[in-house]
Amino acid sequence: HTKRKRTCTGWKVEASDIARNTFNPIRSIVDGMKLSPNPAKEMIALSIGDPTVFGNLSVPEEAEVALIKALKQRKYNGYGPSTGYEQARAAVAEYSSTSKSNVNAKDVILTSGCSGALDLCITCLANPGQNILIPRPGFSIYKTLAESIGVHARHYNLQPEKSWEVDLPHLESLIDDDTAAIIVNSPSNPCGSVYSKEHLLDILKIADRNKVPIIADEIYEHFVFSGSEYHPMASLTDSVPILSVSGLTKRFLVPGWRLGWIVINDRNNIFQDEVRHGLQCLSQKILGPNTLIQAAIPDILKNTPRSFYSDTLEFIESNAKLCHETISKIPGLKPVMPQGAMYMMIGIDMAHFPEYLNDVQFTEALVSEQSVFCLPAKCFEYPNYFRVVLTVPQAKLVEACQRITEFCSTHYRTDSEIPDCRYIRNEAYDESWIE
Amino acid sequence: HTKRKRTCTGWKVEASDIARNTFNPIRSIVDGMKLSPNPAKEMIALSIGDPTVFGNLSVPEEAEVALIKALKQRKYNGYGPSTGYEQARAAVAEYSSTSKSNVNAKDVILTSGCSGALDLCITCLANPGQNILIPRPGFSIYKTLAESIGVHARHYNLQPEKSWEVDLPHLESLIDDDTAAIIVNSPSNPCGSVYSKEHLLDILKIADRNKVPIIADEIYEHFVFSGSEYHPMASLTDSVPILSVSGLTKRFLVPGWRLGWIVINDRNNIFQDEVRHGLQCLSQKILGPNTLIQAAIPDILKNTPRSFYSDTLEFIESNAKLCHETISKIPGLKPVMPQGAMYMMIGIDMAHFPEYLNDVQFTEALVSEQSVFCLPAKCFEYPNYFRVVLTVPQAKLVEACQRITEFCSTHYRTDSEIPDCRYIRNEAYDESWIE
Ligand SMILES: Cc1ncc(COP(=O)(O)O)c(C=O)c1O
Ligand SMILES: Cc1ncc(COP(=O)(O)O)c(C=O)c1O
Repeated sequence: HTKRKRTCTGWKVEASDIARNTFNPIRSIVDGMKLSPNPAKEMIALSIGDPTVFGNLSVPEEAEVALIKALKQRKYNGYGPSTGYEQARAAVAEYSSTSKSNVNAKDVILTSGCSGALDLCITCLANPGQNILIPRPGFSIYKTLAESIGVHARHYNLQPEKSWEVDLPHLESLIDDDTAAIIVNSPSNPCGSVYSKEHLLDILKIADRNKVPIIADEIYEHFVFSGSEYHPMASLTDSVPILSVSGLTKRFLVPGWRLGWIVINDRNNIFQDEVRHGLQCLSQKILGPNTLIQAAIPDILKNTPRSFYSDTLEFIESNAKLCHETISKIPGLKPVMPQGAMYMMIGIDMAHFPEYLNDVQFTEALVSEQSVFCLPAKCFEYPNYFRVVLTVPQAKLVEACQRITEFCSTHYRTDSEIPDCRYIRNEAYDESWIE
Repeated sequence: HTKRKRTCTGWKVEASDIARNTFNPIRSIVDGMKLSPNPAKEMIALSIGDPTVFGNLSVPEEAEVALIKALKQRKYNGYGPSTGYEQARAAVAEYSSTSKSNVNAKDVILTSGCSGALDLCITCLANPGQNILIPRPGFSIYKTLAESIGVHARHYNLQPEKSWEVDLPHLESLIDDDTAAIIVNSPSNPCGSVYSKEHLLDILKIADRNKVPIIADEIYEHFVFSGSEYHPMASLTDSVPILSVSGLTKRFLVPGWRLGWIVINDRNNIFQDEVRHGLQCLSQKILGPNTLIQAAIPDILKNTPRSFYSDTLEFIESNAKLCHETISKIPGLKPVMPQGAMYMMIGIDMAHFPEYLNDVQFTEALVSEQSVFCLPAKCFEYPNYFRVVLTVPQAKLVEACQRITEFCSTHYRTDSEIPDCRYIRNEAYDESWIE
C-alpha cells in the first residue's frame, strides 16, 4: 500500500457509504409526517405490519412448549453451525419440499429473520452497479438492502386492476446484462395478492428466457384465503434457479424471534459453483440465528395444529371482507380485495379530495381528524393508495372503517364541486410523481 | 441508466465480490488439515472457543428463569425497535457505565452477537479502500468482516515476551490518512492477555494524536484472573470516541443466544453527526436480535449472582495455572501465562522439532499421534504458536497436557541432535512467513 501521512488535525469521523446508503423509506416518510391524533378519539393504528401488536393473535402454544423444551435440555446454548443446526435445516427442508421441488438440509440456510435471508441473497447475487428487479408497490426492505451495497433497485409495475399481477412486458423491458435477480413476492406485502399458477409460470418464462435467477419472497407462504391456492415458485420450474426465503415470522406470529431461512432450489446445479458457497460464507459474518429457536423448529413445524393456521386465516379473511365491503361504499376510495397475506391496498381518487396533495397528506389528515393511521403507499413507492393492516381486532377495524367513512364524506368533492382542472393542486395528475 | 441487451444465452450465475471476499481463515485452515486422530486414544478438542461444549460450564439459572418469564408474558414475540427494546438498552447502559464513562439507553444498540456488533461498527466506520488496524495474533473475524466489504485489515504486532502488549511504535507506523479505526481486544482471544491501565492509556494516546476512533472488543469484559484488573477503554479517555462491543456470549456462557451490543462512548459528540445515525440505519437491515432474549436482559444482568462469575473464573484460572505449569516443563514449548479470557497461547520452538514445517504440521501430528487438537496460531495470523482453550473439564486438560508432553518428548531434538542449520526445513527461520 502507498503509505500516506495522517493529516487530520481535529476529530472528524464520517460514516461509510454503506451506512449512508442504508435507508429505510418507511421510517423517513413516517418521521416526516405531522401525526397529531384527534385527542377526542382513541388512536387506531392500521399501519403496523406486526400481527402480535394487538394481543388478539398470538404465538401457538406448541411453539412456546418447544422453546421451553429446548431451553430445559441445556444443549442448545452454545454456537451452532453458521448455517444452522442440521436437524433444524432438515425440518425446514421437509416443510418446504414439494413433490417437484425436493430439498434437504444442505439446501437450507437459517438466518436472522426473513430480512436476514433477503440480505444474504441480495448481497450474494449482486455486485455494486448491478441491478435487481423489485415490485412496485413492494416491501421497502428490498430497496434498502440493495442500495445499501450500491446495487440498483429497478421497479417493475404491478397492476391494481388485475389484482396486482405483474406487468410482464414492463418487467422484461427492465432486464439487461446487469440484472442479477428478480424478486417476486407472493402472497404480497402490501398488496395481499396471491399469484395464480399461470401468472407465476409467465414470470418464470421471462426469468428463463433471460437467464435471471429469482429470489422468491414467500414469507407469507400458505397465507391465502378461501378460493386461492398457494404455489411455491420453486414447485413450478425445472430450469430457473430460485432462492426461496421465508421464516417463522408471519405464519407462527413470532416476528421478534428473528428466525428466517433461505431454501436453495437449484435442480440444475446453477448455484452449485459459487452461490451456494457464497451464501455459506456470508452466513459466517454473524454466525446464525438464536440456537434455542433453531432447536425448537422441528417441534414447531411438526406440532402446530392445522387449526392454528386456519383460525388465523379465517380471522384475517373475515376482516378483509368486512373492510372491503365498507370501504367499497365510500365515494373516492377504491379498495383492492386481497387474496392472502394480511394487508389491503386502498386507492384514493385524489381528484375528489382536492384539499390534499397526495396520499401522505390524506393519511396525515386522517390521523388528525379521526385518529386512524394507515401507511401512505408512498412507503411502497406507489402513489395515492394507502395500506390497511387486517390483523387488528374486528371491533377496532369496524370503528376504523366508520371513521374513514366519516372522514371521506367530509372531504369528498363531487365532479361538480371539483375546482377547475387548472386549479387542482393535488398530485393526481402530476405524472412526475409516478415515475 | 444505460440500458443494455441481455446477452447471456446459458445459465451462469456468479457470486458477488462481497460473497467471494467473505472468508473465514480458521475454517479454511482447519478444513485443509489432515486430522485423523489416533484410534487408540479418545479425542480431546482444546480448539473450540465455545465454553458450553463440554457441559461443565453452563448458563446461569437466573438467565433461564428470565427467559421463561419473558416467554410467559407473551408480550415479546412481536417486532422490537431495530436497535433493541428501550428497557434492554437501558439495562446494558447501566451495566456498562463507569463513573467516567456514563452512558444511557440511547447510546446502546443491541445486535446479533458480538460478531454482529463488530460487523456494524466496521461497516459503519470504513469505506472500501480504507483500512482498519487489528492485532496480530488476533481474532479472525475482524479481517473476515473488513475484507468482506473491501476494507483492508492491517495487523499491528503484539509482543509475547511482554504478555502480548501492543508494539506501540509499530501500531502508530501503520496509521495513515485512510485508517478508519483501531480494534483493541482486551481481554484477548487468542492471547488471554489483559492490558494494564497504563498500556491502554498508551494506546489511547496514539489514537488521540492521530484522531483515529477505537473499536474496543470487550466481549471478555470482567473475565480476568486474580491479580489483574479490567479497565473498560472508554473509562480511560476524555477525548477518543470509542465504540465498545460486548454481549452475553462469554460471561453468561450463551454463545448461541446471539445477543451482543454496541455502546457508543462519545463524550465530545464526534460520532454525533454521522456515525450514530449510520449505526442506527445499519441495524434496520436485520431488525435486531431475538426479542425474548432482549426482554430477559434486565433480569439476567441484575439477578445473576457474583458467585456465578467468580466460579467460572476460578475454574478457568486454575486450569490456566495447571496447564501453564505442565507445559512450562516441556522442552521446546513456551506457554505464555494468560491474565484473563479463556485461552493460552503456547510457542513452539520449531528448530527443535525439525520434523515439522510449522505450527500447522505440528498440531496435525499432535492429532494423529495423541488425539489432541489445538488450533495452530496460523488461524490468528501468527506463526509457530498454538492456542489452548481453558474451559475444558480439568481431567481432560490434565490428560491432554500429559499427551502433549509425551508427543514433545518423542519429537524434541536437542541442540546437538538438530541437523545443520542449512538443512532445517521447518519454517522457523523463514521470515516471509511472519509478514
Ligand atoms: C414481504 C416481506 N418480506 C420479508 C419480511 C421480513 O420478515 P422478517 O420479520 O422475518 O425479517 C416482511 C415483513 O413484514 C415482509 O412483509
Ligand atoms: C475476541 C472476540 N470477539 C468477538 C467474538 C464473537 O462473539 P459472538 O459469539 O457474541 O458473536 C468472539 C468469539 O469467540 C471473540 O473471541
